[in-house]
Amino acid sequence: MSLLIVGTVAFDKIETPLGKTEKILGGAGTYIGLAASYFTEKINIISVVGDDFPNKYHQIFHDHKINTEGIQIVKGGKTFFWEGKYHTDMNSRDTLITELNVLAEFDPKIPKKYQNCEFLMLGNLEPNIQRKVLRQLKKRPKIVVLDTMNFWMDIAWDALIEIISIIDILTINEEEARQMSGEYSLAKAARKILTMGPKYLIIKKGEHGALLFDKEKNSFFSPALPLEEVFDPTGAGDTFAGGFIGYLAKTKDLSFENMKRAIIYGSALASLTVEKFGTENITYLHSSELNERIKTFKDLVEVDI
Amino acid sequence: MSLLIVGTVAFDKIETPLGKTEKILGGAGTYIGLAASYFTEKINIISVVGDDFPNKYHQIFHDHKINTEGIQIVKGGKTFFWEGKYHTDMNSRDTLITELNVLAEFDPKIPKKYQNCEFLMLGNLEPNIQRKVLRQLKKRPKIVVLDTMNFWMDIAWDALIEIISIIDILTINEEEARQMSGEYSLAKAARKILTMGPKYLIIKKGEHGALLFDKEKNSFFSPALPLEEVFDPTGAGDTFAGGFIGYLAKTKDLSFENMKRAIIYGSALASLTVEKFGTENITYLHSSELNERIKTFKDLVEVDI
Repeated sequence: MSLLIVGTVAFDKIETPLGKTEKILGGAGTYIGLAASYFTEKINIISVVGDDFPNKYHQIFHDHKINTEGIQIVKGGKTFFWEGKYHTDMNSRDTLITELNVLAEFDPKIPKKYQNCEFLMLGNLEPNIQRKVLRQLKKRPKIVVLDTMNFWMDIAWDALIEIISIIDILTINEEEARQMSGEYSLAKAARKILTMGPKYLIIKKGEHGALLFDKEKNSFFSPALPLEEVFDPTGAGDTFAGGFIGYLAKTKDLSFENMKRAIIYGSALASLTVEKFGTENITYLHSSELNERIKTFKDLVEVDI
Repeated sequence: MSLLIVGTVAFDKIETPLGKTEKILGGAGTYIGLAASYFTEKINIISVVGDDFPNKYHQIFHDHKINTEGIQIVKGGKTFFWEGKYHTDMNSRDTLITELNVLAEFDPKIPKKYQNCEFLMLGNLEPNIQRKVLRQLKKRPKIVVLDTMNFWMDIAWDALIEIISIIDILTINEEEARQMSGEYSLAKAARKILTMGPKYLIIKKGEHGALLFDKEKNSFFSPALPLEEVFDPTGAGDTFAGGFIGYLAKTKDLSFENMKRAIIYGSALASLTVEKFGTENITYLHSSELNERIKTFKDLVEVDI
């Protein structure tokens, strides 16, 4: 089954209390794609970069067998750039620079080959762009997962509500769930958001794990691994989402039980991402490292009641 | 097997965004005792109250088959009183009044009948009082659990470090673990605290669950139930501790696997406590309510990886 990912491919420059980087490979689409590639093949990506985007980064996608025909390369354009600095607790950060560059005029086009995808992951982007992609697909995918953020709730509420009403799974963080629902209790927030369209809601709680809710009042709480050192939280949520949908695409099982497993796999991968800067840890991850981490997660959560 | 609990028996006056109470029954020893009584019998308690402590409250202990011979009643004395007000998010609170009253001169004495207890729960109290109790026991209990708080780290560090070096299980919250260890990462904090004496460390994360660590690098992460409404967080940690040690005392199984279960049972009970004011929900809890809540927890955490 093929997986279509829509999301930014970017340059990031990151400073954390433990160090800083030059311009490195980043972007939601990048993290989602790399993460998903550990579970499934036939991955297609839709994005845009400038011609300053180096071949070595294109090569990373190819090494992961990600089809990049859908990454538009704008001649003379500059790739989206983000620079940020994390605070001491790593739970908050300041954006120092955001240069939209080629992203400002991004008009997603779906290559013919990408039609008939069965899994669609709409990474965090302006909601109208997300909707444009969905509209261009002649056949609705089996599962549409959408990630978004508070920024779009602030400036593009109506468009966001519209796209959310036609997707299957929404992923947002705690604060965003509260903002979107106007409810402080996450249980109440989930109940309310699930009346707005999505069949499933995943609330990402960072170092506190993730919650999964469905409309039938099932819920699941996955922990996060207590790590000795968080080096750089950038891309954790996108890695999680990529691992999640990659595992679903691999297993082709859309039951609540299997989504629980997908959350564990996504969390395991995300815990690896944050142990190094940027995509460093998930660019060429050995399957034994991933399996060991999944085993650690299993030990962390398993209890026989 | 008998369980000995040392902890405050008190009057609380509580205000939360959802309402307020008059003076009601409170205190760590009270919550621990009531919680433990749902799992085990032969519970003894050591505490102190004034003669203003009403019979109806003594009766509650008796109804739970908790032996109160060790609760000293100071003639003409007034019972420890705490008044507090919770902020909107329920995660923080202001203490409005603390009247130590009879607690100021509390000198714990262990009734003969209480000797040979096999499980000891030292509720949050001045560390020297906790140590005085342990010293009076002719035979060291099989398991000594100790709860403490940042206040004692600030004003009685040396005494705290001394008692901690001779107990088995320490329960503290996230911030306290960071303060005690000087480490931000909870994994590192746990590693460090486990060199200070305790064989096991439980880090209470409130609405984010609880972590269990041992010296052999085993760890377990129990979630908290996402509740529709938290009415009053008072006593959640003590209910958790009471359920935890009550379950251990009932099962007599001190393996890591069984401690994981004990944490789930303690968490289930704590989730009931916070849904009403004070001890209201756990004073006369029907076993069917508790079993249903434990079932809910099971569904929340179970995943077949």
